[in-house]
Amino acid sequence: MAKVDLNADMGESFGPWPMGNDAALLGIVTSANVACGWHAGDADTMAKTMALARDNGVNIGAHPGFADLQGFGRRRIKLSPSELENLVIYQLGAAQATAAALGTSLRHLKLHGALANMCAEDEDMARTAYSAALRVAPEIVIMAIAATAQERAVRALDCNWVGEIFADRAYEDNGLLVDRSKPGAVIHDEQEASERILRMVDEQALISQNGVKIPTQVDTICLHGDGETAVQIAQTLRDNLSNAGVDIQPF
Amino acid sequence: MAKVDLNADMGESFGPWPMGNDAALLGIVTSANVACGWHAGDADTMAKTMALARDNGVNIGAHPGFADLQGFGRRRIKLSPSELENLVIYQLGAAQATAAALGTSLRHLKLHGALANMCAEDEDMARTAYSAALRVAPEIVIMAIAATAQERAVRALDCNWVGEIFADRAYEDNGLLVDRSKPGAVIHDEQEASERILRMVDEQALISQNGVKIPTQVDTICLHGDGETAVQIAQTLRDNLSNAGVDIQPF
Amino acid sequence: MAKVDLNADMGESFGPWPMGNDAALLGIVTSANVACGWHAGDADTMAKTMALARDNGVNIGAHPGFADLQGFGRRRIKLSPSELENLVIYQLGAAQATAAALGTSLRHLKLHGALANMCAEDEDMARTAYSAALRVAPEIVIMAIAATAQERAVRALDCNWVGEIFADRAYEDNGLLVDRSKPGAVIHDEQEASERILRMVDEQALISQNGVKIPTQVDTICLHGDGETAVQIAQTLRDNLSNAGVDIQPF
Amino acid sequence: MAKVDLNADMGESFGPWPMGNDAALLGIVTSANVACGWHAGDADTMAKTMALARDNGVNIGAHPGFADLQGFGRRRIKLSPSELENLVIYQLGAAQATAAALGTSLRHLKLHGALANMCAEDEDMARTAYSAALRVAPEIVIMAIAATAQERAVRALDCNWVGEIFADRAYEDNGLLVDRSKPGAVIHDEQEASERILRMVDEQALISQNGVKIPTQVDTICLHGDGETAVQIAQTLRDNLSNAGVDIQPF
Repeated sequence: MAKVDLNADMGESFGPWPMGNDAALLGIVTSANVACGWHAGDADTMAKTMALARDNGVNIGAHPGFADLQGFGRRRIKLSPSELENLVIYQLGAAQATAAALGTSLRHLKLHGALANMCAEDEDMARTAYSAALRVAPEIVIMAIAATAQERAVRALDCNWVGEIFADRAYEDNGLLVDRSKPGAVIHDEQEASERILRMVDEQALISQNGVKIPTQVDTICLHGDGETAVQIAQTLRDNLSNAGVDIQPF
Repeated sequence: MAKVDLNADMGESFGPWPMGNDAALLGIVTSANVACGWHAGDADTMAKTMALARDNGVNIGAHPGFADLQGFGRRRIKLSPSELENLVIYQLGAAQATAAALGTSLRHLKLHGALANMCAEDEDMARTAYSAALRVAPEIVIMAIAATAQERAVRALDCNWVGEIFADRAYEDNGLLVDRSKPGAVIHDEQEASERILRMVDEQALISQNGVKIPTQVDTICLHGDGETAVQIAQTLRDNLSNAGVDIQPF
Repeated sequence: MAKVDLNADMGESFGPWPMGNDAALLGIVTSANVACGWHAGDADTMAKTMALARDNGVNIGAHPGFADLQGFGRRRIKLSPSELENLVIYQLGAAQATAAALGTSLRHLKLHGALANMCAEDEDMARTAYSAALRVAPEIVIMAIAATAQERAVRALDCNWVGEIFADRAYEDNGLLVDRSKPGAVIHDEQEASERILRMVDEQALISQNGVKIPTQVDTICLHGDGETAVQIAQTLRDNLSNAGVDIQPF
Repeated sequence: MAKVDLNADMGESFGPWPMGNDAALLGIVTSANVACGWHAGDADTMAKTMALARDNGVNIGAHPGFADLQGFGRRRIKLSPSELENLVIYQLGAAQATAAALGTSLRHLKLHGALANMCAEDEDMARTAYSAALRVAPEIVIMAIAATAQERAVRALDCNWVGEIFADRAYEDNGLLVDRSKPGAVIHDEQEASERILRMVDEQALISQNGVKIPTQVDTICLHGDGETAVQIAQTLRDNLSNAGVDIQPF
């Protein structure tokens, strides 16, 4: 039986500003990527979110990003290798301690936003970021975007890792995401999204919008946590996968 | 033979702004309290400072403070107990990971600035802060200001701790520091400061400016790291203590 | 005919985090207090909010607060007088320029959160803050909380000002707000709130929950902008005042 | 007689961290570019620096940069046009108000760091930034780096502007600065730097390291304010220019 993990970004509230519906989403996903206070989240939000994830038996992951609250970590910032290492180490450590204080621990690490995008394009950068994390937490599972420089980096590092695909984004024939400005880039139909995911999980490959297969490792599916209908879409996808016989559980 | 540790705040540079002369001071002190990025320091400065401390065989400690860079953590901010806990946990974790990535580990924790002052007055607040740290690092040594609510808190928690006195500040008969606005509050004469410290280390007691003895535990002496003459004063104090037969070594 | 202004805090979104429903509220209130980026808001949110206010013919005001995004400016921070002056000047200037770039200008200034509360208790502090604003904008209207140190400060400064009451908060006999922890502190019934406001506007006095009258100047009523029902409550209050013959217009 | 202005970046201290020697430098330069709190400086530093500049009869300019204190505004951040406009408007307004509160006003605007570099390469970006400033302060003088997209932008906008060259940086034949990694990029000899500046001021042209002349407008020379020898170098350059008969005064 095919097996897959469902992940979503969480803990993205900041101070007085709520974001997302983490409580509802934690009943659906099996891995939570918790923002670490540089691009979203704060020490209090981290603690609340991780406590909820722990109570739901969901994998807890550190989700570091650039130091850019206003830009939500979505603006590219050029860092030196040592700045990048220290960014990862600092945020990972804060997340580890937050989990430890709650009697739990981190299972994985996933990069956020522009930092993730840059590391999906640049294997050296991805290796720098991941190596830094592994120096702090040698057993941590790196969540890498399938068929990108992130995957090449984790394979080269020979560390614990899982491959991630996106629930609602179409792929080009080279494995890159179809640019959001192009028609069909985002898959809005839940039935279509479910069938597509099922096939990618079954075949352990990306399927491009033209039907090209790119073999990779499909361990976890990224669901969106924000937006008004996010929770409902996530639930439908989970139900469809479940009904199709996929075993949904934390990696 | 009397034995004592010498500590100083470090890693207080931020981005392009240097502060203090950590490299020189690390040849003199035996414990370094490293700022954790909220009131001073940043992820890069932490890494650089801890690497230097490690290479000098100096105790490395986390030195958390309020989230107030512009105010250098010296402005009082009223936090709820859980906000205070999360402040300590987050910064302690960031420091732990920074040390771990350098192949070393934290020995102690000391509160900074207004946070330290508030906890020296309020035992409940001190217990809240220290308990949070101990949930993350049960063996960590808490550096508590001798004869204050900080000391009462660590005694009540029955944790690893050391008592700290100040090298150059006069004490009132009740054990509080003489207010800086009063004459004699700061001891500028190095000979006088040295003799006073020697007596407090020997007698394991604070000696007020009126000669009143307040028994306490004197394990470490706080030296200043900033100011043009800080390094020279620190060296003179160390030499005087050493010449008087005090064994200067990390706790 | 009695005349009154209705004001609400706005522009409190920050980066990716929305707050409140400014667009709807701007159809109801006559004065908008726009956050200036230190406790809430950012340069982009300010510009968007002021453009909307301008298009609705609503007074635009600067709403400075403490530099504490995570705490939303609700945590007390002790500043020196010159720090307080520069806080006001900086935020006021940023707001003035934002208005100017939109072809409009600021009509008023209102302090936010803990800064407002501290100035409602401390006339010297209020005078320091308001004097700084008046050095930059001599004609600006200061919105002062009626019957507090804020009102005493503006009277002493002999500047343009308006007196403000709260739509839904009960008053003690000494003119202070009933503490939120006490029963009856917040008036949830819109009919009761409307009648109470009508009487205070008519009589130009605070009416305490015991019926004691404290003469003051009632020019503007503070409505809440956040919370799910804020817009509906604001609309009901406006309708009730309007139906009772009160002329609702910008001061 | 040739005439020129000397400018330097100032007000780059932040909170407890000093930078540069503004007091000394203000006796040498004729224009001060004051950081506005996003990449360096803060509301208090701005006020102190502008008061000093006012007392020295030196032009006061706003010097906005990216919101990146740790990176000192030297890391490139990709902003949308409206984000860029609001960045300039906000910081310019804060600077205007700070000057107004001191009884003085701004004479000019100069972009900082990575923001300046990006606008020196991209005329559209420069126009966006400068247009925003001119909407707030139509008479303000834009300080544009000579022979770059910044100069093309101010010429196209037909606004008040001055052309700026660097005291100690060599130029390529196309007018760009020689990359710092190449030999000869920085001119360390004060005599050589002085002679080179004299020729560029006389001929109103950049002179490349190969002797190629690129006609432009040379109104102001950028001196460095930080580094141990900055003040002495600045003084020597001023003396050399003065002795050669150049009239040094604010534009």
